Amino acid sequence: MFFQSHFSPRLTRHSVTRWLRIAFLMLLLPTLWMGGAIAQEAASGVPTDVQVILDTLWVTLAGVLVFFMNAGFAMLESGFCRAKNTVNILAKNIIVFALSSLAFWAVGFAIMFGNGNGLFGFNGFFLAGADNSPLIGSDYQGVFNSLDWVGIPLYTKFFFQLAFAGTAATIVSGAVAERIKFSAFIIFSLLLVAFSYSITGHWIWGGGWLENLGFYDFSGSTTVHSVGGWAALVGAILLGPRLEKYAGERINAIPGHNMSTATLGGLILWLGWFGFNPGSTMSAHPDAISHILVTTNMSAAAGGLTATVTSWIRFGKPDLSMIINGVLAGLVSITASCAFVNVPSSIFIGAIAGIVVVNAVLTFEKFKIDDPVGALSVHLLCGIWGTLAVGLFSVGGNVYSWYGEGAGPTAGLLFGGGIQQLLIQLLGIVAVGIFTTLFSFSAWLILAFSTGLRVSKQEELEGLDIGEHGMEAYHDFFSE
Amino acid sequence: MFFQSHFSPRLTRHSVTRWLRIAFLMLLLPTLWMGGAIAQEAASGVPTDVQVILDTLWVTLAGVLVFFMNAGFAMLESGFCRAKNTVNILAKNIIVFALSSLAFWAVGFAIMFGNGNGLFGFNGFFLAGADNSPLIGSDYQGVFNSLDWVGIPLYTKFFFQLAFAGTAATIVSGAVAERIKFSAFIIFSLLLVAFSYSITGHWIWGGGWLENLGFYDFSGSTTVHSVGGWAALVGAILLGPRLEKYAGERINAIPGHNMSTATLGGLILWLGWFGFNPGSTMSAHPDAISHILVTTNMSAAAGGLTATVTSWIRFGKPDLSMIINGVLAGLVSITASCAFVNVPSSIFIGAIAGIVVVNAVLTFEKFKIDDPVGALSVHLLCGIWGTLAVGLFSVGGNVYSWYGEGAGPTAGLLFGGGIQQLLIQLLGIVAVGIFTTLFSFSAWLILAFSTGLRVSKQEELEGLDIGEHGMEAYHDFFSE
Amino acid sequence: MFFQSHFSPRLTRHSVTRWLRIAFLMLLLPTLWMGGAIAQEAASGVPTDVQVILDTLWVTLAGVLVFFMNAGFAMLESGFCRAKNTVNILAKNIIVFALSSLAFWAVGFAIMFGNGNGLFGFNGFFLAGADNSPLIGSDYQGVFNSLDWVGIPLYTKFFFQLAFAGTAATIVSGAVAERIKFSAFIIFSLLLVAFSYSITGHWIWGGGWLENLGFYDFSGSTTVHSVGGWAALVGAILLGPRLEKYAGERINAIPGHNMSTATLGGLILWLGWFGFNPGSTMSAHPDAISHILVTTNMSAAAGGLTATVTSWIRFGKPDLSMIINGVLAGLVSITASCAFVNVPSSIFIGAIAGIVVVNAVLTFEKFKIDDPVGALSVHLLCGIWGTLAVGLFSVGGNVYSWYGEGAGPTAGLLFGGGIQQLLIQLLGIVAVGIFTTLFSFSAWLILAFSTGLRVSKQEELEGLDIGEHGMEAYHDFFSE
Repeated sequence: MFFQSHFSPRLTRHSVTRWLRIAFLMLLLPTLWMGGAIAQEAASGVPTDVQVILDTLWVTLAGVLVFFMNAGFAMLESGFCRAKNTVNILAKNIIVFALSSLAFWAVGFAIMFGNGNGLFGFNGFFLAGADNSPLIGSDYQGVFNSLDWVGIPLYTKFFFQLAFAGTAATIVSGAVAERIKFSAFIIFSLLLVAFSYSITGHWIWGGGWLENLGFYDFSGSTTVHSVGGWAALVGAILLGPRLEKYAGERINAIPGHNMSTATLGGLILWLGWFGFNPGSTMSAHPDAISHILVTTNMSAAAGGLTATVTSWIRFGKPDLSMIINGVLAGLVSITASCAFVNVPSSIFIGAIAGIVVVNAVLTFEKFKIDDPVGALSVHLLCGIWGTLAVGLFSVGGNVYSWYGEGAGPTAGLLFGGGIQQLLIQLLGIVAVGIFTTLFSFSAWLILAFSTGLRVSKQEELEGLDIGEHGMEAYHDFFSE
Repeated sequence: MFFQSHFSPRLTRHSVTRWLRIAFLMLLLPTLWMGGAIAQEAASGVPTDVQVILDTLWVTLAGVLVFFMNAGFAMLESGFCRAKNTVNILAKNIIVFALSSLAFWAVGFAIMFGNGNGLFGFNGFFLAGADNSPLIGSDYQGVFNSLDWVGIPLYTKFFFQLAFAGTAATIVSGAVAERIKFSAFIIFSLLLVAFSYSITGHWIWGGGWLENLGFYDFSGSTTVHSVGGWAALVGAILLGPRLEKYAGERINAIPGHNMSTATLGGLILWLGWFGFNPGSTMSAHPDAISHILVTTNMSAAAGGLTATVTSWIRFGKPDLSMIINGVLAGLVSITASCAFVNVPSSIFIGAIAGIVVVNAVLTFEKFKIDDPVGALSVHLLCGIWGTLAVGLFSVGGNVYSWYGEGAGPTAGLLFGGGIQQLLIQLLGIVAVGIFTTLFSFSAWLILAFSTGLRVSKQEELEGLDIGEHGMEAYHDFFSE
Repeated sequence: MFFQSHFSPRLTRHSVTRWLRIAFLMLLLPTLWMGGAIAQEAASGVPTDVQVILDTLWVTLAGVLVFFMNAGFAMLESGFCRAKNTVNILAKNIIVFALSSLAFWAVGFAIMFGNGNGLFGFNGFFLAGADNSPLIGSDYQGVFNSLDWVGIPLYTKFFFQLAFAGTAATIVSGAVAERIKFSAFIIFSLLLVAFSYSITGHWIWGGGWLENLGFYDFSGSTTVHSVGGWAALVGAILLGPRLEKYAGERINAIPGHNMSTATLGGLILWLGWFGFNPGSTMSAHPDAISHILVTTNMSAAAGGLTATVTSWIRFGKPDLSMIINGVLAGLVSITASCAFVNVPSSIFIGAIAGIVVVNAVLTFEKFKIDDPVGALSVHLLCGIWGTLAVGLFSVGGNVYSWYGEGAGPTAGLLFGGGIQQLLIQLLGIVAVGIFTTLFSFSAWLILAFSTGLRVSKQEELEGLDIGEHGMEAYHDFFSE
């Protein structure tokens, strides 16, 4: 079985003519065949062994950038919340990645990328089982066939995907902040990464039914962001708003306590996204990397600008938290389509996201869904918008060199490709949404009846730092 | 037309003998010619396709490091200013990069690197127009001939240069902080990046008249730093000092509010400079990268140390803000010459910069030019010093492998090369200074009569965070 | 003389068959021999020139990540201490790296890696002397034979090793914080980096007696971390505890003032470790890099989790500073063995470290050795544990592709290899411990009688920021 995840850059290069050339070379120059590499090089100009190193370096460094997004989320979320809950949020962010590391190694990676059926994988738990990576295509022998187009060692594949998995759980953290029990959050994250994220991930990137249908989500607007968003939505609704948030009809603004760290967090996330999106090539493909780098950045820039203008109009002044969330909205919304759309489209996609995010924050607030950091507006709504954007703006086949033959989404509705891709994208959004919502609802409910979801009223007023951790974030900040 | 920007590492490798070898190989081994790559490899050992990937990875990751300098500037500038203006400074830093992204894409890149005349480019607006990158030299066909020596995709060239353009505007932000109107600053930044920076950049890196004269500025002591510095100088003078700064003859120290974030910012900038300077090779040339890495670091270290000692002597105690600015002074001052001087020279250049910066901060203060973060001393003065250093310390041709034949500055005054290079450097400094000063003066003046430059007295006393953004950076920092 | 440092990945590839192939090719295809590269490529698939670029890019970027650990330590240490000593800690962290840059360039690198005897090197001061890097093995001619297995330019070797040397000195900073004189600390750091660290480093990585005995410390659990730890231990004992720490029998907790920056620091260190450990391959070896990436991350994750559980059990609540130190404990403890053990072992090694670190913090406290940030528990104890782990968990030869023939530790005690490797590891730990302790004791003593070690009682109570630097970290934090 051979699945085309994201896209298969190598397929483009390994064309039929390659085999003709190799055959020809073998006839004329048998001695050259010894090294094995030159014949392959004759086709693509890049010896296989060199390509493996290049791809490994690229994916490693991109994965390291994505890992750093943990610091970004920690700073952003804690800065947007109140000082009395800072330790709690910071602790959650570190622990979640530590737990994700073990859970995704033991279970999640096998469910997501292991050989199995259209719904989930069931091979390769604990990264065990046959695997002859970095061999690719028909040379690959192992239990992770869905990644057989990626010519890097198995452990690099795992590390990069782990960094993604950690992100999904972290998204939840922001929306349920300032009132959730530490233990409930930790167990929920574990379940989300080990099972829910990995199952829907299998559908999309692991050779599952959505991938086979032609659903495209290049770096995870749905796979990562809206999955985290749905789980967060259910959590935020079940938990209810923070105590101080609503007073009868009045909505109280609860400003963050540290805009310096929040802004730093936003910029670290922007930085990390240069690993998140371009790294999802899983291959050092110059044209693809450079294209994705620019679409990603332009969408972020456009989102930041329209959010600034929108907040300026709505509030009379440009709001810094909206500017930051506008940038993040642009980033989330370009994530699915960054490799499939042109630069003007990327600017348009981000610009819409920046307008959406400001209005969404206000709308969620009005509906009494209390989301302290705006995670639902950024990750859920812009994740959905970004996934739809594939069906609207994709340029279609035979435009970009990194689309394999027959791979990649068909042209979007606005690019003359009809409504087909858009409908497939919609189907994927709905299916993943329903599954994640049901899974999350069940998980939160079980936790509600076992550990309990919410801290006591007194602990919430006093702050979770004292209640859950027995310490303050800024003890004795002024030393006298 | 073929301009040698910075230097042309590829030219060194692609020597005449290459063509002889290729001809020879073509006669003997026609089958090998099929792949196209092997013949080139015979000359340099590195197949062209591989070099393109290597160069793209290197410039991409270097550009990502330079992008992160936005976070460095945001933390440094806000930390060095007062808490009441923190939101404003942070917002400026994000918005400026977002705006620069759009402006440099639409206009700036074409003016700076597009084909045109000696004064400015007028091709390639919106990155449109012919371009067959990554082909180089005489194989290149397109509207950005000034970058035809760089063998990477056009979008990677753009991203790297965009990260530089964003820096120039950010430098202004620090010097005009705590009193400028948000809207005035934003419009000024837009004009600076889209026009002024790009025009003088064309002169130096885009095939313009200074480049043709033999002016050398490897990574931008002048092109980026002193350009930002001149614009900042005009702004700081026109705005006048902050209200609390001078009381009659007395100069009030106005200490920064957060040395933790300021120090973090300084270290992020130091980190980013390892992309800024070595990345300006635009090519993964091992000897050049390693040399520049070390000259850059040693100059920073030396600047930090001499600034420590100088401040210790002048104030009786080592001042942390001077230590940080000393490091930055070392970095700015080695930026023009990092590829052209040896390590002992780099230490000397940085050491001088560290002494200069402490005294300059005190001198600007005395002349009632109020620069809250020391941006003029760091970027303007050390940018000038660094540009002159090329004419003093360059080792000259035939020493380093990355000087192409006939490329690179001649030996400096102190290295037996006479005064010629120094005079050219001086000419470049003066020309760029005059142009940027006039442009900035006009731009600031137009803004003064339209949006107005300075916030009201009351707003300044209250803080720009409330006045311009309606929020505080550290709301309710202690929760009771 | 030919020493095998860490391991020699290139040796594996450059096997005997390579020479047979080259000879064969030379007979049949003399024209191909012209370029020099193809013959080598026939053996490994990677042309030498390409490998040099790949290795240089990898080590450069890994070194840049290690450099960023300076920011991590600065944030971690200052956040864990009190606000009144913040400026002092930040200043120390910057100055130490600046000083290390000059000292390691002038003296340390020559002592550590220069040709000499089994105890220290005495060639290559100021990076001068013959060196034809990136040539390797028997082609290498120069004064740094201990690094002749690394195929990158000399300056890249230096930069990477400099980033390591800076780390050792920074470790001391945390343990002696909040009471040491600025000048005493600076001079001690200079002596440590220039002499002590470099001498013991020569024993282990520079071709010295421990390396020849078969002592293995892949990335520096002993070479970097326990060396810093021993120096810190002697300093902390000689200085005595902080004034407020003990009141008769009572031990006062002195919480850190800024958990936001401390957590950021911890995450930056985790990030930097992805350069520290995988970068110590000094070569872009895909299998080695990917393996080390995962063992490093899993040990960190396991350490974070067991420290959380341990602190939860001991204190009733999960302590954030313990979670952070648990992650760091996992990282330090996997540093020696990351290339030699499998993933389950790495999890076990980290898990033990997380338990050790919590108990060690409490034990040091009980013995009245006052270590404000837990540096002794993290770097000294887990450095020792990590070095022993090589002798317990190494898989032995013929398992991993990156062990050269005859290179790498023998199988550990728990992997059927007997006690031999463990005893060699123990010998190394003890020898390095004794030397560093004696050196540090002498150095601290000389400083005690010249500059003095400790600030005055009044200055300590008031804070070192005012006393040593005449400024506050958070001046006028709330602007009214």
